[in-house]
Amino acid sequence: MNAEIITIGSELLLGQIVNTNARFISEQLADMGINVYYHTAVGDNPNRLKAALEIAEKRANIIILTGGLGPTKDDLTKETLSLHLNRELVIDENAFRSIKLYFETTKRKMTENNRKQAYTLKGSHVLRNDHGMAPGMILTVNKHIYMLLPGPPKEMEPMFLTYGKEALFNQTKAKDKIISRVLRFFGIGEALLETKIEDLIDGQSNPTIAPLASDGEVTLRLTAKHHHLQTAQALLNEMETKILERVGTYFYGYDETSLMNELVKMIKEKNLTIACAESLTGGMFQQEITSIPGAGNILKGGIVSYTNEAKEKLLQVKKQTIDVYGVVSEQCAAEMAENVRTLLNADIGISFTGVAGPDTLEGKPVGTVFIGIALKGKPTSVELLHLGVNRDTNRFRSVKYGCYFLMEKLKK
Amino acid sequence: MNAEIITIGSELLLGQIVNTNARFISEQLADMGINVYYHTAVGDNPNRLKAALEIAEKRANIIILTGGLGPTKDDLTKETLSLHLNRELVIDENAFRSIKLYFETTKRKMTENNRKQAYTLKGSHVLRNDHGMAPGMILTVNKHIYMLLPGPPKEMEPMFLTYGKEALFNQTKAKDKIISRVLRFFGIGEALLETKIEDLIDGQSNPTIAPLASDGEVTLRLTAKHHHLQTAQALLNEMETKILERVGTYFYGYDETSLMNELVKMIKEKNLTIACAESLTGGMFQQEITSIPGAGNILKGGIVSYTNEAKEKLLQVKKQTIDVYGVVSEQCAAEMAENVRTLLNADIGISFTGVAGPDTLEGKPVGTVFIGIALKGKPTSVELLHLGVNRDTNRFRSVKYGCYFLMEKLKK
Repeated sequence: MNAEIITIGSELLLGQIVNTNARFISEQLADMGINVYYHTAVGDNPNRLKAALEIAEKRANIIILTGGLGPTKDDLTKETLSLHLNRELVIDENAFRSIKLYFETTKRKMTENNRKQAYTLKGSHVLRNDHGMAPGMILTVNKHIYMLLPGPPKEMEPMFLTYGKEALFNQTKAKDKIISRVLRFFGIGEALLETKIEDLIDGQSNPTIAPLASDGEVTLRLTAKHHHLQTAQALLNEMETKILERVGTYFYGYDETSLMNELVKMIKEKNLTIACAESLTGGMFQQEITSIPGAGNILKGGIVSYTNEAKEKLLQVKKQTIDVYGVVSEQCAAEMAENVRTLLNADIGISFTGVAGPDTLEGKPVGTVFIGIALKGKPTSVELLHLGVNRDTNRFRSVKYGCYFLMEKLKK
Repeated sequence: MNAEIITIGSELLLGQIVNTNARFISEQLADMGINVYYHTAVGDNPNRLKAALEIAEKRANIIILTGGLGPTKDDLTKETLSLHLNRELVIDENAFRSIKLYFETTKRKMTENNRKQAYTLKGSHVLRNDHGMAPGMILTVNKHIYMLLPGPPKEMEPMFLTYGKEALFNQTKAKDKIISRVLRFFGIGEALLETKIEDLIDGQSNPTIAPLASDGEVTLRLTAKHHHLQTAQALLNEMETKILERVGTYFYGYDETSLMNELVKMIKEKNLTIACAESLTGGMFQQEITSIPGAGNILKGGIVSYTNEAKEKLLQVKKQTIDVYGVVSEQCAAEMAENVRTLLNADIGISFTGVAGPDTLEGKPVGTVFIGIALKGKPTSVELLHLGVNRDTNRFRSVKYGCYFLMEKLKK
């Protein structure tokens, strides 16, 4: 079984957007043990899409198309496939109901072209869209499996994970079960991690081990294949144990989690509350906490103390501290963490102050960051980081380190 | 003249990396007025690359390949093209010298496979690599232009900009100048915007009009072609005027800007300062302001008032307001905006309170959002939104609406 991914949209060919859909689907198919030999991107042009389909049919069993399911005249994927396969389009009542509901909820007027989104290829298994209007679909015709997914990643990714993967698995009638598990590490570089498990990587066969570094984190994807699910599971467990014996101190979670997610879980389990004081991160830490549903139970709130004025007025940092040590200092970080904790009567206070860049501050180089952690009834600690020169990277790495340091402290 | 971009690398097909090269090159070619009809991604496999080349030759005049120029056994792009075109590979002395120099400078030992990188296709124009070892090249064979570029974006992008673009322009012998302009809209859906300019879209030829919707915004890319640059410019201006006559109220900026960027520009120009009180957005508005360098000059700071306690203690919202109207109310939003402005002595106070989801709050449905705007010396205003059911979307759309409403108010 091998697959080709055809992504449709002139915006790809104009370079307006990057093709994250091809990456996402490829990763998912790799997990399922399906080889991908080609990606094709084509514009909103029915003739060129038809030509791409004909080429794909010669070289792949599974053809996954994304994009072109929307309401506008440009969106022609279903229509083109309908003509190509000689299959009519029929309205899907469930999809139509949910489109109508969307317009009612948002109090907007539904236009005629929105109705177009409810049409699906006759005989296809419809994939519900929980984050938008256009449904997806999958069908087998002449030994080829065709899967149609919407273009916006926010709709496509959850659709594929929730409904698409299983539907595809059923249509392929595969015998081997393939399972995978991602181990996530923070605080260790990719090269060092690979060196520590070099013999395991070199000797890999089942499970396979795929390392990947991004955004200051390293992940290892383990994939095992066996017709007994339990055996595949045991193979994964065994390899995981071997890896964690070597680099377990840097391990923080499985699969699609994040440092913040693990931190929020830990704070919830311990029944604690947190308050935050952010300077260089400008609200990013709190924004990430609150992106997790139910954060209201642990986050009391916080202060974005971007100016000295805000540090003094809202956070009650002593003027003397700022005058003597500066805002980019251990002392200021400690006071910020302690004061925000006390002001909001929280169990945990965390603070971020530093130099994001591009300019230096108080003579301290770009990348200097202090993270303060105040726990009720415990001495306050401050960590110092020397990050790089890129402003965005410095900000989001500070947030990650904040999660990491706080988790380490809470574990003790 | 039309082009196809072939990106080579198994890591693309495994979903380990996203194909930013295809995006970058497409954008550059769009600027040059060269149409791109297809992107193809293929693995490190000479047979499948050869097949992709044969297909590309049938449908494109210009074939741009990236990746597979490195020193390892996997890197076979030059070798495959050499066999396919029956053109021998010869050592490029300049490239070889710079590879040797690189190893001397970094005090590392040069291995034999590094020499492989200095080979180029005979008769090609060599493109220097200022950020790595593998040179690029361009050559015309049988009416096709082939351009080979390295895979790592840090090498490929500067090579294309510094040497590749001009070399390609020379080989195409193009006469027409092509320019494009992106118009950005907020507060109107894609379907409605298209309906309002349907006749212009249907009648488009020069300039062309390409609509694109993402993250609650809609953009129109206008592209004009003419051998006189000034005439092309005039064609763009004329079409822009026609479009803005119809939907100008939703227009907010050109090309690679964002709502927040335009807002920060406007606040800077007016020499004002801002303070923020965020509930459902949890710091996202401030995080976005501070992602723009130099935000310290306009953002005084703010409060993330995620709990009622934080609203009362830090923001001094009256207990009575919360008891009588609730936190998801016009009254609470108004007080939040006014109080944060006064507390930080800023010119502008902005507040966000609402129901992000997934749970309802105070009996108000998910997606209910109030945005308060307090300007020094002016009456406070509050806007009510009915957004959708997705938590993430509700949060970032609230931030965008906040920018939009504030800009509208500042314009008056």
